Amino acid sequence: PSPEAPKPTKVQELCVYEMNERDRGSPAYLRLSQKAVNSLGDLVPFTNKLYSGDLQRRLGVTSGLCVLIQHFPDKGGDRYEAIYSFYFGDYGHISVQGPYLTYQDTFLAVTGGSGIFEGVSGTVKLQQIVFPFKLFYTFYLKGIPNLPTELTGKPVPPSPGVEPSPAAKACEPHATAPNFTN
Amino acid sequence: PSPEAPKPTKVQELCVYEMNERDRGSPAYLRLSQKAVNSLGDLVPFTNKLYSGDLQRRLGVTSGLCVLIQHFPDKGGDRYEAIYSFYFGDYGHISVQGPYLTYQDTFLAVTGGSGIFEGVSGTVKLQQIVFPFKLFYTFYLKGIPNLPTELTGKPVPPSPGVEPSPAAKACEPHATAPNFTN
Amino acid sequence: PSPEAPKPTKVQELCVYEMNERDRGSPAYLRLSQKAVNSLGDLVPFTNKLYSGDLQRRLGVTSGLCVLIQHFPDKGGDRYEAIYSFYFGDYGHISVQGPYLTYQDTFLAVTGGSGIFEGVSGTVKLQQIVFPFKLFYTFYLKGIPNLPTELTGKPVPPSPGVEPSPAAKACEPHATAPNFTN
Repeated sequence: PSPEAPKPTKVQELCVYEMNERDRGSPAYLRLSQKAVNSLGDLVPFTNKLYSGDLQRRLGVTSGLCVLIQHFPDKGGDRYEAIYSFYFGDYGHISVQGPYLTYQDTFLAVTGGSGIFEGVSGTVKLQQIVFPFKLFYTFYLKGIPNLPTELTGKPVPPSPGVEPSPAAKACEPHATAPNFTN
Repeated sequence: PSPEAPKPTKVQELCVYEMNERDRGSPAYLRLSQKAVNSLGDLVPFTNKLYSGDLQRRLGVTSGLCVLIQHFPDKGGDRYEAIYSFYFGDYGHISVQGPYLTYQDTFLAVTGGSGIFEGVSGTVKLQQIVFPFKLFYTFYLKGIPNLPTELTGKPVPPSPGVEPSPAAKACEPHATAPNFTN
Repeated sequence: PSPEAPKPTKVQELCVYEMNERDRGSPAYLRLSQKAVNSLGDLVPFTNKLYSGDLQRRLGVTSGLCVLIQHFPDKGGDRYEAIYSFYFGDYGHISVQGPYLTYQDTFLAVTGGSGIFEGVSGTVKLQQIVFPFKLFYTFYLKGIPNLPTELTGKPVPPSPGVEPSPAAKACEPHATAPNFTN
């Protein structure tokens, strides 16, 4: 669109999977609280792999920081403040911030983006599938042009057994985003 | 509003109090600089309680991270880069980033939000009342539907003696936001 | 503009230089991974000086946090997730988040701003000139009124030898932004 075009206001959905395949040394749980149980003071830098919702393409990685806020013994889980980005190779990135609860789905805020996501706003729903290795996200995005069809294939419904296609997992050229982030 | 509705451009004010009641183990001052005086390298994860500006309702919590940037001996204070969110129970959350100076009011940027704050932009004025236990915030918000009246009661003017109503402090059901964050 | 004015949609460019003059104790490389090589777990709080693109004015500082995500031995460099702000004195600030690669230019997301940058969105191009001491940024900004001419002087093209004018370096009153951040 021309620089003077009005900002698109329709909501576009974008689904992705975040997978920890245990080959990136992530997460790095920094027990800076020096307490035996997860406590305020602990920090958790992390980076995982990012696949399209249809699991046919490796897109890139996530990267950022979780700040441990509170441990809930009764829920057997934790509240984190999560500050991270989703990288989509040449398509650009989306930055988000908000709650990550290990025991419950949450919504985070989309705080900005680059590339095809320049000027984006909206939210993202985080669904935990297999803690802490598989997560499913549904972005609700405004303010950007139509997403490429490569990103909007029919998502595989989240379930514990989901896996990326072998071609995507192997990062074969036809099964990656252009210049995918690695 | 329908997904195609134009983005509201009016500015809405929202006032809240952040209170450290010393029962959340916060803040966690991480002296990672290993210097005697506050220095770059120190990190301060924190989480405090959030009350409505009229002090009649417990809304939720704040949570996030302050990055110590600089200590000013002449001012007896510090500059932090603050990256955190305000949680309002079922209403959602607002994420912010910007300067926190222990000796002066500042404005931070609103970077995004969820729930009723989806798509929000704007700024927030941070006023320190009793360092570091009581703060008063005035949000200037754009891009969202009208705020619920529960959040827009007449704020109590900030002063060192302000306290939440006993009912709000006790989190009585009529004195909390729906499903308030705790 | 009046609070009801429509949001400006034109793109404005803003160029700045970030300079590490080694007098701010920055960066603070926190080797929390406890590994010999840069690794996930390392955190790098930093603060540098900010000059106008024409190098005629000291504007303020940058401040924030880089999260080490990955070390690339073959590239001799690192990927960081960068979360920081640019401070422009009385003009306000811009917050950004995104990739910082020590071996390549990147685009980060503008996540918000205050002062004349209230309600801003867009991206910023980061160009490394002399690692890690001199960087050149081109902001592409939307949603804000026309920038003051003081900030939009013709930028000096980035090259290793660039230096701020002696007056700007000395923070002489005519060579600073109003109430420049220090």
